[in-house]
Amino acid sequence: MMKTSEVPCVPLTELPKPLDQLSPSELERKAAIGKVMTHTLQSLTSTYIDSGFQWLLPVALSQSTDPLWPDPGASIDKRIEVDIYGKIVRTTASMIIHKLVASSLAYPKLFIVSPNVRIEKAERAKTGKHIYEFTQLDFEARDATSKDVFTLVEKALVTLVTSLKKDLKPELEALRCEPLKVPKAPFKVVDKAKLEAKYGDEWEACLSKEIKEPTWVTNIPREFYDFEDFKTGKWDNYDLFLPQFGEVLSGAKREWEYKKILAKIERDQIKKENYALLLKLAKEGKVKPSAGAGIGIERLVGWATGVRHIAETQPFPRVPGTVNEL
Amino acid sequence: MMKTSEVPCVPLTELPKPLDQLSPSELERKAAIGKVMTHTLQSLTSTYIDSGFQWLLPVALSQSTDPLWPDPGASIDKRIEVDIYGKIVRTTASMIIHKLVASSLAYPKLFIVSPNVRIEKAERAKTGKHIYEFTQLDFEARDATSKDVFTLVEKALVTLVTSLKKDLKPELEALRCEPLKVPKAPFKVVDKAKLEAKYGDEWEACLSKEIKEPTWVTNIPREFYDFEDFKTGKWDNYDLFLPQFGEVLSGAKREWEYKKILAKIERDQIKKENYALLLKLAKEGKVKPSAGAGIGIERLVGWATGVRHIAETQPFPRVPGTVNEL
Repeated sequence: MMKTSEVPCVPLTELPKPLDQLSPSELERKAAIGKVMTHTLQSLTSTYIDSGFQWLLPVALSQSTDPLWPDPGASIDKRIEVDIYGKIVRTTASMIIHKLVASSLAYPKLFIVSPNVRIEKAERAKTGKHIYEFTQLDFEARDATSKDVFTLVEKALVTLVTSLKKDLKPELEALRCEPLKVPKAPFKVVDKAKLEAKYGDEWEACLSKEIKEPTWVTNIPREFYDFEDFKTGKWDNYDLFLPQFGEVLSGAKREWEYKKILAKIERDQIKKENYALLLKLAKEGKVKPSAGAGIGIERLVGWATGVRHIAETQPFPRVPGTVNEL
Repeated sequence: MMKTSEVPCVPLTELPKPLDQLSPSELERKAAIGKVMTHTLQSLTSTYIDSGFQWLLPVALSQSTDPLWPDPGASIDKRIEVDIYGKIVRTTASMIIHKLVASSLAYPKLFIVSPNVRIEKAERAKTGKHIYEFTQLDFEARDATSKDVFTLVEKALVTLVTSLKKDLKPELEALRCEPLKVPKAPFKVVDKAKLEAKYGDEWEACLSKEIKEPTWVTNIPREFYDFEDFKTGKWDNYDLFLPQFGEVLSGAKREWEYKKILAKIERDQIKKENYALLLKLAKEGKVKPSAGAGIGIERLVGWATGVRHIAETQPFPRVPGTVNEL
């Protein structure tokens, strides 16, 4: 295969283009990234299945989806709502509510390869980390703790990188400037409050630059469904940061008690009627404690391949602000 | 596991219900179907990867999607269009155009586990075969023939059923009235014109009842992208029918010549501007001959598990006309 690494390792000047605008060498690069994507999807789904998880199909339109609020990381330009059969449905922002109900009632350990639509503000086009459609490997496990999730994710990443280096050596060498390193598990865990104290508002960028190994960040105030200890004010949730890259996973131990869910929905001024089923099931004691996360597939493959913009990992790039025919 | 086969083998009287309305034994049944789904997805994706296919992620919203016209099997209540970043996009009806472009330019052999939105008329609720969101394993191979597709699909199905019977024996026994049979490859091939001459308009139902083995039906006049021999009037395309069940796959050898694609788009009175990129690439000689198909995952799992309605294979049922909160 042609060496295509003339391209990366420079700041992002040009946004990812659709397939029909790529040169022959850029198409070859795209195909190499495609192989890493294929390998990643097969490796991750196998790890989860081997760990006893059921593979659920995603949904595209639901009455209830992720409020994405209050989340300091959210920057949504538009929420898509349409009428079908006389009811208003929304494109999937994440399947978090579906996961809580499904893991409580029928599938104790589940994952979904879930396409999510988040119409990010166009000004995010050049972050290199945002796309208006992305895919999560979204998983949830009943009665699991944060520690259980850490262990599973660490195993999945070590397995993935080890096999990528073995099976796709020429592709990785063509795509990357520096060799991909197998992460060392267990990963370090840091409290967000401490990071903010040290770095201020820019803690995410500073952390990503400083770390040499994947690092868990915990205690992040955000959406109502993440577990918050009302006594200590601490959140039992987490993001995973990759060196020189940034956040690739977001997850939490979840709330399951009716009173807490209700109090937090009211505190966040979220429309209660969009979460009627979750509230009803929680009131009946049917929502079970669980923990889970969503792994951003384009980000993970973007990190592994060393691309400048994660839309490069998409056959049909979804750069905020730019709509192509396909 | 509890024997749950009191339920099937009777006509469809009740539509599939959401998880929160299921009894404990119905939830157990749902979990058993979920195991068959997980196994099916892993088996199929592995077969395609082992055969050299790349796994592409799906898209949710595009300017261009499948016209689903003229297709005698289409019964669409509403097409969803929304404005993002000042352009009109449509929810994915199928990724056929994406497949043609992607297999021509960058990924010679590709598959996508692709969620499709087709808002079927509510009167289709009780067919047991229609849901308003479904997932296709949608694949395409450059330079492949119909015969190549037949061979690959037959291998995928034989591999799947053989391993299902081995690995999920108790689940299949609980779910089904009769044992699942490993299909015998190669499958028989029948011309649609002959079926119509024999059975009239009801040929699909009659064929499904009569056959004892999966059967290919060829020569089906439909959308512009399927290959039509202008001299003989014959179509080089196919559907796969399963015994006692019906259609589970639809595919074709594709058109690639500019003049034919243009002539057929005009003949079908399809909006040319929605297929500008395909036409441009075809004019430049960049669209390559290919063949492929989409396997309806819920239908395939519905057949394997013997459910009365394919929405039973969905954790969140998408019965035409009925919108649940999740």
